[in-house]
Amino acid sequence: MSATPLVVSVPEAEYAQALADLDGLDVVVWDMEQPHPRGRDLRLAVMPYMTKLRLTEIVQGLDSLEVVQLQSAGYEQFVDELPDGVTLCNAAGVHDASTAELALTLTLASVRDIPEFLAAQERSHWEPLRLRTALADKRVLILGYGQIGRAIARRFAPFEVTLTAVASQARAGDELVPHVHGIGELGQLLPHHDVVVVIVPLTDATRGLMDAEMLGRMPDGALLVNVARGSVVDTGALVAECASGRLRAALDVTDPEPLPPEHPLWSTPGVIVTPHVGGATDAMRPRAMSLVRRQVEALLAGEPVDNVVAGPLSHPVR
Amino acid sequence: MSATPLVVSVPEAEYAQALADLDGLDVVVWDMEQPHPRGRDLRLAVMPYMTKLRLTEIVQGLDSLEVVQLQSAGYEQFVDELPDGVTLCNAAGVHDASTAELALTLTLASVRDIPEFLAAQERSHWEPLRLRTALADKRVLILGYGQIGRAIARRFAPFEVTLTAVASQARAGDELVPHVHGIGELGQLLPHHDVVVVIVPLTDATRGLMDAEMLGRMPDGALLVNVARGSVVDTGALVAECASGRLRAALDVTDPEPLPPEHPLWSTPGVIVTPHVGGATDAMRPRAMSLVRRQVEALLAGEPVDNVVAGPLSHPVR
Repeated sequence: MSATPLVVSVPEAEYAQALADLDGLDVVVWDMEQPHPRGRDLRLAVMPYMTKLRLTEIVQGLDSLEVVQLQSAGYEQFVDELPDGVTLCNAAGVHDASTAELALTLTLASVRDIPEFLAAQERSHWEPLRLRTALADKRVLILGYGQIGRAIARRFAPFEVTLTAVASQARAGDELVPHVHGIGELGQLLPHHDVVVVIVPLTDATRGLMDAEMLGRMPDGALLVNVARGSVVDTGALVAECASGRLRAALDVTDPEPLPPEHPLWSTPGVIVTPHVGGATDAMRPRAMSLVRRQVEALLAGEPVDNVVAGPLSHPVR
Repeated sequence: MSATPLVVSVPEAEYAQALADLDGLDVVVWDMEQPHPRGRDLRLAVMPYMTKLRLTEIVQGLDSLEVVQLQSAGYEQFVDELPDGVTLCNAAGVHDASTAELALTLTLASVRDIPEFLAAQERSHWEPLRLRTALADKRVLILGYGQIGRAIARRFAPFEVTLTAVASQARAGDELVPHVHGIGELGQLLPHHDVVVVIVPLTDATRGLMDAEMLGRMPDGALLVNVARGSVVDTGALVAECASGRLRAALDVTDPEPLPPEHPLWSTPGVIVTPHVGGATDAMRPRAMSLVRRQVEALLAGEPVDNVVAGPLSHPVR
């Protein structure tokens, strides 16, 4: 271990406490709004969550900076501003639990008629008993089977459903699904599923993936849940399918975002909209702190940091 | 096997189809509204679900009747009318999946602010981003750890929560909880839990169990979920705790039921009310059919039927 301590900055005091027991470390709480008190020595900087700060402003005078650690999974807006020699790490994994949880929340709220019951509660009206739908026995397709897709599957598994996973490439299954289907099979699979949960990354290949044709392949009464990005789904086609009463939808992401007040999605029957709140919960902080700790430990040990998305230390994001 | 076929009645044709491959059986579809076509030979009668029929009317002339199979877990209203020599079986297990699922639905809807988002959707309003609560990392106490309690625990397990089980008697744990606490420990446990899910049977010992004192032991911001019976909770005390903003509640059962329009629970802040819909879903039918099939197979084999709650074949309900 070098005699010079590793200088890192964290955006909140809580993060510093989580690192307090590590030797060889000098932790500075820095919100990035003021000049950094020890800027020239800083090697790892953790960005605040939900920041509007730009990297170009922050990195002025940070001559020793090696790693910028984001607290979001998205990183596209920072890549172009990344100085030479600095590595950018995203927060993949930090928001998985929260996002997977919201996928289940949206699915269950829709399947178990929560909007109808809340509307009845508003009128102080006890709805008469009739046989309704349950999630049990339904066929659930998870479209996108990376870390969050698996976190979603894990939460669906005890609900007595049939799970199907679809990823960009077919591959062997895991303890949750016998097989991971390739995206080319999606069209054939959709007619046999009651719930489709979208959690693919937004790429040129996935933009508009759930278009009128694919939505048309979903069976009558099926539910589309989107916790990925709004533009993976053709919003106009979805509004048409839900307005006719054929499909239902529960969306944490929309296209555009924020959804403007005049947008038809707000009032389409059978549609639940939440305002992109998948990851922004108190589940995030302990997971972010644990990631920062792993990164600091790696730097202290001279090992590669995790979640590298750009810069000289780049290796495939796990 | 006797040469005389076993005559059973089922309330719908679908149930008869599920028994079609069994030998030595004569299945009659009978809705119990008309006289039974083969009443004198009938040995097992399956009651319709959500029936208002009374046993005293149904059993007239059913001289060979041995078993009445209910499709509900509740059976109290039938016991007094049960003829001598006839055994009554309830549908314990049939509604577990559906009820457990609703417990998760109510918990997630409350924790993830679904009522607030649906109200915002009603106004076509995209709520600005702020850090909200997640279920992950929360401490969940399941009050009542029979079949449905375990089904609830199984569904909570992948959500990265801490699970505590409380039953009438302390006992060893299972794959979901290290230990099952006895009801005497409830008061000490409550201050350390963020979510309390009530699924105890209603007995003299559990009526009013969650009274002002027990509710007062729940920490600020905690959530009470009731999928048991309304009168396990002191409704007045709960309304007071929620009206002050200290606790939240999500209730599928209330005291009284149906909840009258003027009842304060409807409009108490932080309270979600669903109209006792835990078990009444399409998950029920395949599970009821599978129970009926098990019972028929037991009678054909001369073995004891399951789920006996009253009558000569009584043995402890499993």
